[in-house]
Amino acid sequence: MTTEDRLAALEARLAQLEDEQAIFRLVASYGPLVDSGTADETAGLWTADGIYDVDEMFMGDQQAIHDMVTGDMHQGLIGRGAAHFLGPAHVTVTGDTARAICHSILVIHHDGKYFPVRAGANLFHFVRTSEGWKIQHRTTRALNGSEEARALLSSGVTGRDLPKGHQ
Amino acid sequence: MTTEDRLAALEARLAQLEDEQAIFRLVASYGPLVDSGTADETAGLWTADGIYDVDEMFMGDQQAIHDMVTGDMHQGLIGRGAAHFLGPAHVTVTGDTARAICHSILVIHHDGKYFPVRAGANLFHFVRTSEGWKIQHRTTRALNGSEEARALLSSGVTGRDLPKGHQ
Amino acid sequence: MTTEDRLAALEARLAQLEDEQAIFRLVASYGPLVDSGTADETAGLWTADGIYDVDEMFMGDQQAIHDMVTGDMHQGLIGRGAAHFLGPAHVTVTGDTARAICHSILVIHHDGKYFPVRAGANLFHFVRTSEGWKIQHRTTRALNGSEEARALLSSGVTGRDLPKGHQ
Repeated sequence: MTTEDRLAALEARLAQLEDEQAIFRLVASYGPLVDSGTADETAGLWTADGIYDVDEMFMGDQQAIHDMVTGDMHQGLIGRGAAHFLGPAHVTVTGDTARAICHSILVIHHDGKYFPVRAGANLFHFVRTSEGWKIQHRTTRALNGSEEARALLSSGVTGRDLPKGHQ
Repeated sequence: MTTEDRLAALEARLAQLEDEQAIFRLVASYGPLVDSGTADETAGLWTADGIYDVDEMFMGDQQAIHDMVTGDMHQGLIGRGAAHFLGPAHVTVTGDTARAICHSILVIHHDGKYFPVRAGANLFHFVRTSEGWKIQHRTTRALNGSEEARALLSSGVTGRDLPKGHQ
Repeated sequence: MTTEDRLAALEARLAQLEDEQAIFRLVASYGPLVDSGTADETAGLWTADGIYDVDEMFMGDQQAIHDMVTGDMHQGLIGRGAAHFLGPAHVTVTGDTARAICHSILVIHHDGKYFPVRAGANLFHFVRTSEGWKIQHRTTRALNGSEEARALLSSGVTGRDLPKGHQ
């Protein structure tokens, strides 16, 4: 290979690693941001029209996510003590879009004791923007035996049968 | 350094990072694959003669791992809801072999509630194959105070006193 | 860009990724080391005068951390079975210092059962030394609703209002 070819190959491979690292880091920031009630930065992980679709709650844009963080339910949760503990994300980058899948556990504090009150599957769809990678769609389902939660886990790794909004 | 030397150094360092990233991602795929019952891909994380040695169960090849995923016990577990939640892997790559160590927690769903029913130590030994990195040997032991579980955690980080099958 | 410029740019970007990876790996080694009672290596994650400040316990140097690992309380905990399960670290490298933030859960074994007895926020401040990256200061606070624990989570991601010892 010529020097030019080797430089170009290095630049492309490095950019791929940087993208994977940026997305991993983005996912790793969600728990600390949401558990501290840092509403602007939590919502800013999404695009303006980004979606956060949880079992019991559908948030259709950044503002809805912001409202969730500042809302009474979430403020009560973190005021008593809560850990939205996300596992290490399995990240797949394809050009200017990407996906990630990870488990999550919600651990809450009550009266000096801690309880895991939910285990979930989290599928993320990202887009590259002028401000870096952003979440376009996140779907979270409780791992309560539902087919849907299990399908998220499988498609997140394999890329097969991705649900609507995640293609 | 000459341009040639600098290119060669960059290529070697980048390859090291790519290997570490590939193995981290492999470990991060186990939980989502097994909790969705994606048997082919779960078994495919191992070499054909790869070993998965858990306290209560010894699987001596890929087929045995496949059978575990499709078996009644595991299907019952994920049909009711389960998270095999693995922590971030500490990865060490040495040429064409590698190891990783991480914690795991098994959280199960029962009747709307979630229970952590096991915490474990997981030591992985990987080999580079023509199809990428594969698990050659995984040893999982419950963190119930046993010397063996603690020895896995220590040797996984330090590389000292690695157990049989992990050298 | 000239070949020289491209090589220099690649070297700088690669060094940044390597630093992030080294710190991520350092954080991922803490749980396995401490849960196996590997005292020298656990203490060696810190600088000689490194600080580990936990709610109920302030350790002001490497020796104090070593003493904690070999002490009766910790030995009792790991002798019965314990997982200091740290989440994936969100790492920010700035030249020769760095920070990381992650959740942690402490799961303990008792009589065949497992209990999450603490969820925490962990803020790390690192320095680059001649022996690689080391922890200069780690602050851990229980996520029990306290303002202080939430402030750690927020500042760890945003870099704003970092507490004393973490600037």
